[in-house]
Amino acid sequence: MWDFAESTVEDVALLRQRYEALTDSVRQLIDATLRTEVGDDVVASAKAEIDAATAKLRSHQRADSLGISVTPDGGTVAWGNVAIGPRNPLAPPLEVVHDSPIRAHFDTRLGAAYEGPPGHLHGGYGALVLDHLLGHVASYGSVDTAVATGTISFRYLRPTRLGPMRAEAEIQDTDGRKIFVTGHLADEEGVSVTAEGVFIALKRAPEDLPERA
Amino acid sequence: MWDFAESTVEDVALLRQRYEALTDSVRQLIDATLRTEVGDDVVASAKAEIDAATAKLRSHQRADSLGISVTPDGGTVAWGNVAIGPRNPLAPPLEVVHDSPIRAHFDTRLGAAYEGPPGHLHGGYGALVLDHLLGHVASYGSVDTAVATGTISFRYLRPTRLGPMRAEAEIQDTDGRKIFVTGHLADEEGVSVTAEGVFIALKRAPEDLPERA
Repeated sequence: MWDFAESTVEDVALLRQRYEALTDSVRQLIDATLRTEVGDDVVASAKAEIDAATAKLRSHQRADSLGISVTPDGGTVAWGNVAIGPRNPLAPPLEVVHDSPIRAHFDTRLGAAYEGPPGHLHGGYGALVLDHLLGHVASYGSVDTAVATGTISFRYLRPTRLGPMRAEAEIQDTDGRKIFVTGHLADEEGVSVTAEGVFIALKRAPEDLPERA
Repeated sequence: MWDFAESTVEDVALLRQRYEALTDSVRQLIDATLRTEVGDDVVASAKAEIDAATAKLRSHQRADSLGISVTPDGGTVAWGNVAIGPRNPLAPPLEVVHDSPIRAHFDTRLGAAYEGPPGHLHGGYGALVLDHLLGHVASYGSVDTAVATGTISFRYLRPTRLGPMRAEAEIQDTDGRKIFVTGHLADEEGVSVTAEGVFIALKRAPEDLPERA
């Protein structure tokens, strides 16, 4: 766990800046790796540089995954999250925007690295981003309450074209610990996938709370 | 589209070998980027090497995503697929094994880059891999038939621990163009997510068929 105990808000911002720039470079490399048509010699030369960079970065690294940390200002960060993590090259990353306490959306652009059917988003990746957004809406504003996905269903109206896309989600109802959320994913031609989820609010045990600085 | 028209089976195998080694190096770099704790100087030095490698690879690259190609032996490859693509650094990659014409599984190990809740797989990523496996089982053996996900539902029994995991899927029934498939994801403690999907068999239009070498 990155330890923010001795950090200020400014320290955390600088750390994020340092690693975010690196992560953005790796996102570019991922796209180039996928689309390149260079020959053996150039591949070997690029691979040697990549391996050298990996060795440098591994010279001092944490043993485990990044988890969730509480920042000095009382917020939480999930820098390694596969959907939203600014330090995770696999994450586009998604930047969720709240429209109200029960409603949120994100706009993103997903390219060649997110392909399933030719020219289109992998249906499972659509499920990933919608699961994330619906869960985010369900858990908004609670630090000491964890929200777990109970069930989630997706209806695919048509394939989603790679490129710009937008997702929206909204809490529809609650019943005890259950939170009912719906949402959709849309490309430039309109809605392509709809989602319905039931999330469960769980009181976190103190030992499961993120480290507080 | 990578053009296999002039290729032999051996050519395709060599191409795959060339780019697979590069992609595996990038997968290592992704993990190192996520977990590194090195300071500004080392980050800057590693970033310069990564950017240099990206520029080399981009010196000759395809304009679009990789799509699906037919190989000289009549098989299909989806080298860029976000779940299974051997050329996609985002893909673990999953290697689906057929147990029978209606049943398949994969074993994989998902680490820090696939995190949602601390130490656990992102629930949406579980949905991604199950959607892929169920769809794969539904479409097994058909080149001129595309299978689209109609609806798919997931039930989360508990969080899936990062590390070794296994998924299984099986066709339960068919009704006209509908194919009913169930499956699950399990970590070392047992089943953590179950899935039920309805897939639709679509006759592909000739212009939508992958390029045939």
